[in-house]
Amino acid sequence: MALFVQKFGGTSVGTLDRIHRVAERVEKTVRAGHQVVVVLSAMSGETDRLMKLAHEITSQPDDRELDVLLSSGERVTIALLAMELRGRGINARSFTGRQVGIVTNSSHTRARIAKIMASPVQQALAEGVIPVVAGFQGVNERSEVTTLGRGGSDLTAVALAASLKADRCIIFTDVDGVYTTDPNIVPSARKIHKLSYEEMLELASLGAKVLQSRSVEFAAKYGVPVEVRSSFQEGEGTLVTHEDADMERALVSGVTGDRNQAKITVVGVPDRPGIAADLFSAVAGSSISVDMIIQNVSQGDLADISFTVPRSDLPRARPLMEKVKVELGAQRIEVKDDVAKLSIVGVGMRSHSGVASRMFQTLYREGINIMMISTSEIKISCMVNEQDLNPAMKALHEEFGLSEPVQAKPNLG
Amino acid sequence: MALFVQKFGGTSVGTLDRIHRVAERVEKTVRAGHQVVVVLSAMSGETDRLMKLAHEITSQPDDRELDVLLSSGERVTIALLAMELRGRGINARSFTGRQVGIVTNSSHTRARIAKIMASPVQQALAEGVIPVVAGFQGVNERSEVTTLGRGGSDLTAVALAASLKADRCIIFTDVDGVYTTDPNIVPSARKIHKLSYEEMLELASLGAKVLQSRSVEFAAKYGVPVEVRSSFQEGEGTLVTHEDADMERALVSGVTGDRNQAKITVVGVPDRPGIAADLFSAVAGSSISVDMIIQNVSQGDLADISFTVPRSDLPRARPLMEKVKVELGAQRIEVKDDVAKLSIVGVGMRSHSGVASRMFQTLYREGINIMMISTSEIKISCMVNEQDLNPAMKALHEEFGLSEPVQAKPNLG
Repeated sequence: MALFVQKFGGTSVGTLDRIHRVAERVEKTVRAGHQVVVVLSAMSGETDRLMKLAHEITSQPDDRELDVLLSSGERVTIALLAMELRGRGINARSFTGRQVGIVTNSSHTRARIAKIMASPVQQALAEGVIPVVAGFQGVNERSEVTTLGRGGSDLTAVALAASLKADRCIIFTDVDGVYTTDPNIVPSARKIHKLSYEEMLELASLGAKVLQSRSVEFAAKYGVPVEVRSSFQEGEGTLVTHEDADMERALVSGVTGDRNQAKITVVGVPDRPGIAADLFSAVAGSSISVDMIIQNVSQGDLADISFTVPRSDLPRARPLMEKVKVELGAQRIEVKDDVAKLSIVGVGMRSHSGVASRMFQTLYREGINIMMISTSEIKISCMVNEQDLNPAMKALHEEFGLSEPVQAKPNLG
Repeated sequence: MALFVQKFGGTSVGTLDRIHRVAERVEKTVRAGHQVVVVLSAMSGETDRLMKLAHEITSQPDDRELDVLLSSGERVTIALLAMELRGRGINARSFTGRQVGIVTNSSHTRARIAKIMASPVQQALAEGVIPVVAGFQGVNERSEVTTLGRGGSDLTAVALAASLKADRCIIFTDVDGVYTTDPNIVPSARKIHKLSYEEMLELASLGAKVLQSRSVEFAAKYGVPVEVRSSFQEGEGTLVTHEDADMERALVSGVTGDRNQAKITVVGVPDRPGIAADLFSAVAGSSISVDMIIQNVSQGDLADISFTVPRSDLPRARPLMEKVKVELGAQRIEVKDDVAKLSIVGVGMRSHSGVASRMFQTLYREGINIMMISTSEIKISCMVNEQDLNPAMKALHEEFGLSEPVQAKPNLG
């Protein structure tokens, strides 16, 4: 008998028919003799609907009240699923964030979990009850409703799994796992069977929508094995867990591309100490997130500083840069918004040198120009022209053997 | 400075535009220097929508889970109103049933209030905060969500007003008060300015939809003055309070008619002791509510027993009566479903005799046949043919002077 936390997202409980299917899946696990704790999101679209109501009623809705409003969504799904399970003869019981004992700080709409009282759920399990838990929500120390922000339901599931020492936390979603790259761009992309927390974190920060970084960090910290799998079809998904011997065989586990990128260059800045600090403290105050940075002395005592920001932040970044230009005495600002970030991720890079040069050579062979480079221990990212992104992803996917069929190895292939 | 509890029903918060108007009304009261506690229902239609979901997902939804589901509705309205008030610079804060300290028994979907911890609301008021409270909901001793059943939000408002010793509990609704009779049937019907709890209770039990009996009973027990008024227009409504000297001047304060009536006659029952007890214990077990009863010995040792039930209960009553017929050895069952109940209500009946005979004479003069009669201290009801109901109501309304204009008397007219 194992203990599973099964989390179903908004699209998985978006209609009554889908809730039926969730019930079937939970029932199957229960009938197989396992213990199950279910965590649910609100029906897909419900959170948007409520947010729209809030912004229609007042221009700046109060955060505390937003949380009261938004937390109504999961009450609907947990009650409906608990009813349906009871109708099937399974002793299920709904738990709100408060009832399950998720205590957070008071940062409404983006609260952080302070502690989880595992006892209500443990007691329910001991009584043979299947707890159906509202994701995304908790209460602060004054027992006021809070919500955990984007990806909050995943976090609830992982945190519960950690506090219950569950055998596995399974995130059921609308994709069937994490892929070696985007199958829409590279048709030979394959599902990754096993992935380390670090790789998943890099992939998440590179825009893979499957799991939010917060949940992966939490899972890594407490060693919770997390599986991402499809709620619409059978079959194993991707298991995210501690790095193990198997994984090291793979040099590169995934190739990603991110088009939400723009490059800003401040041209002709008088080169004196502290100039980069001045520039980026101005940007930091605006909550625009800067990713890669290059500074090179162009001619004499004038430097060029280039950096990338999410393309969606450009409208806010442009006026800011015009101000910075004047303050720093720069010659001009250049903005290039047809760029994209290309990355390869893999724990294998730790123990194998030469991965970077293989990447650069592959791109050179394809005639692709690299504008900027940034690396971490298990990741290499290059800024390229947007039009080069798809061919670059295909070439790298091929180069690092990700398209080959897996031969009975449970690793990254 | 007075303390008001202002309760707004589902139609009053049914759209964002209407919530704006509620906010305006609350703001006006606050700006006039009063303390206000707001109690809200869910948006109109929301409870029906959720009930429908529950019954679509499973044929017999669990009551505990129904309460979790239904209680989501008021969270939406309290959060939206609190946001809007804060947007207007009013320090409002939402309170769920749990946060406001409404503790009930564990009869899910029809819980009874066990106690109210007034302190959270009192503390908020002391801090200058306007509490915006979810009606209809509470928690049991194990902190599980419960709901109070039909008219539950009115009950929340009245109970809060009692525990806070509020100066008045104002129920804002889609009618502007209690009328002397149905204005659709008798165009000269007038709004009643002041009504005793007992009269309101009789009117509620006779089908006046304005206030549920439970809320009126609660208000009477704790002496809470309750005013029913329109949320869509200005002007005083109907004040329900203790009987006072003014009220006694009115013989009759209202005339009501109820078409949801059917008469069942068990013909030719062998007349032996205990036969009525046998008959009605069979009916009682079915949760069909019997109203008026007549038993008369027709011939020799055979009796006829007639009684009335809500017409909507007939489908369940018919098969039951066929069974009873066999068990009691009766000759046959007669059902008449084109009957209606005509009633007059007024505290004046206590001190004035002759009201009943005046009622009967009036009906006789109009050629209306009375089939059954039942009376209480302040009410007389007659069963008549349904086709006679409207002329009977008009005639009685006229006879007891209810159509006359009120001349600067704050009483029932």
